Amino acid sequence: MNRDYTQRLIVQEVAPRDGLQIEPQWVDTADKIALIDALSTCGFTRIEAGSFVSPKAIPALRDGDDVFRGIGRRPGVIYVALIPNAKGAERALAAHADELNLVMSASQMHNRANMRMSCEASLAGFGDIVRLVKGSRASLNATVATAFGCPFEGRIDEDRVVSIVDAYREMGIAGITLADTTGMANPRQVARLVERVLGRLPADALTLHFHNTRGLGLANVLAAYDAGARRFDAALGGLGGCPFAPGASGNICTEDLVNLCDEMGIPTGIDLQKLIALSRTLPALVGHDVPGQLAKAGRNCDVHPVPEYVKSI
Amino acid sequence: MNRDYTQRLIVQEVAPRDGLQIEPQWVDTADKIALIDALSTCGFTRIEAGSFVSPKAIPALRDGDDVFRGIGRRPGVIYVALIPNAKGAERALAAHADELNLVMSASQMHNRANMRMSCEASLAGFGDIVRLVKGSRASLNATVATAFGCPFEGRIDEDRVVSIVDAYREMGIAGITLADTTGMANPRQVARLVERVLGRLPADALTLHFHNTRGLGLANVLAAYDAGARRFDAALGGLGGCPFAPGASGNICTEDLVNLCDEMGIPTGIDLQKLIALSRTLPALVGHDVPGQLAKAGRNCDVHPVPEYVKSI
Repeated sequence: MNRDYTQRLIVQEVAPRDGLQIEPQWVDTADKIALIDALSTCGFTRIEAGSFVSPKAIPALRDGDDVFRGIGRRPGVIYVALIPNAKGAERALAAHADELNLVMSASQMHNRANMRMSCEASLAGFGDIVRLVKGSRASLNATVATAFGCPFEGRIDEDRVVSIVDAYREMGIAGITLADTTGMANPRQVARLVERVLGRLPADALTLHFHNTRGLGLANVLAAYDAGARRFDAALGGLGGCPFAPGASGNICTEDLVNLCDEMGIPTGIDLQKLIALSRTLPALVGHDVPGQLAKAGRNCDVHPVPEYVKSI
Repeated sequence: MNRDYTQRLIVQEVAPRDGLQIEPQWVDTADKIALIDALSTCGFTRIEAGSFVSPKAIPALRDGDDVFRGIGRRPGVIYVALIPNAKGAERALAAHADELNLVMSASQMHNRANMRMSCEASLAGFGDIVRLVKGSRASLNATVATAFGCPFEGRIDEDRVVSIVDAYREMGIAGITLADTTGMANPRQVARLVERVLGRLPADALTLHFHNTRGLGLANVLAAYDAGARRFDAALGGLGGCPFAPGASGNICTEDLVNLCDEMGIPTGIDLQKLIALSRTLPALVGHDVPGQLAKAGRNCDVHPVPEYVKSI
């Protein structure tokens, strides 16, 4: 089978947001800013840098305003903010976020658990945000969470996911993310859904967000890439995770993804060596080991010294 | 893209051999036998149950003879033994192993480090083993280790791998395993090499052995399956590992692989629920957490109870 691996794969780094949001140990605002500034030098064109949520809902990200005001804005990098509601959108615009990412789950149960409202209430709120953002320089993205499965409801009807994508686009939201919030997607399902959605919007408007909860994150990336998707979320060190699967992996790991691309010849524009060095600072920052494997194993080209005894054989 | 997922994927369980061989904590012979006997009830048709190596070289597997004599032989299950040399082959035949698996690295450096001899000396030894096994009821398999990369030499010439496959087959060894010993393979390379090798032998003679050292194990399985490979090694819990990448993952995890197949509709004949229950006994057996993710995350269909507060939204 001959496949085309020449098309650039765009990695949106999400460790500062989806990675840090469940960390129990507080990460200082200055450390968050230093992490984002270091990420800005690695070749990313998109970084989800923080969130404008209620400090009660996600205390780990309560300093979103200070983070967005404190980071150095590297030309060519789009700094994205996650937004739960109109109040968050106002704060994000005031802090000059380049892009606002809204989120609603395909599953009613999960949206109620996560956003504490029905999907209908979420969509109505999105209308307010679209009106608020119109005329600003910020762009809009909206995420369909649990697009590949729900930890409460199980399977999610693909027609429902597609109809939410249509609803987002009809509201004037340009960017769409399909999120496998708790790592339930499989490559066959991913290929099918990506093909359907890419019949409705251009590849540069679609982001795939995979978690590695069941070890399939990178296989899902390849299936989506083969089906035409070009933009993927990933978190340095594989930070993040799912409160419903303690001990299991979180987001797909950025350096593991970039290594995959480097080895297959898929261009990303990202400096893997810098990324690994940065990832190795994470355990000290968050106070525990992280799931990413490249930082432990090294790149393929980082060969090991031959043991002494071999020389006499 | 329409791919065929109806062909059975055969999983050869290797935890009792490749999984346990690097464990520092001694696992009692009775516990090894109990593990293999439990695996025999899960639907596997092939289990690599132990090794007949020098007790000095691999002390963790010094009880291969007792293990093979102690296990219950379930009809339909082939019990495989890893063999380093003719002496090991004699022991394996005496203990009634169904299949003997020989191993040599494609990389000279790795073969010297691992087998303490040159590739030429390894191949000469294989000739002795082939003569020894001829006339017995045991079948033969030979592994090309470091077939996708070497931790000392880096890239491995594909022509060299193919020529070793040819040499094995010319010696009368029916089964061939291509092993990614330290997790350096990528899906593009896997597809290419599998296609080449399947031009020389039937699919039921080829096994792929992947490690998840850099997070690509299951993506490599899918690439190999898409290219026509049907048989794969995997270890319960993802046991095993690479002494050159401490902290990184070992063999691909059996239950994670079976979950992938179940979700994609690829038949395996293996009972995932039994496998997960068995995997959850491993940390107590080996004295540490294991890398497999299904045992932590559960299957997709193991849905979680909806939080109380959701009911009032």
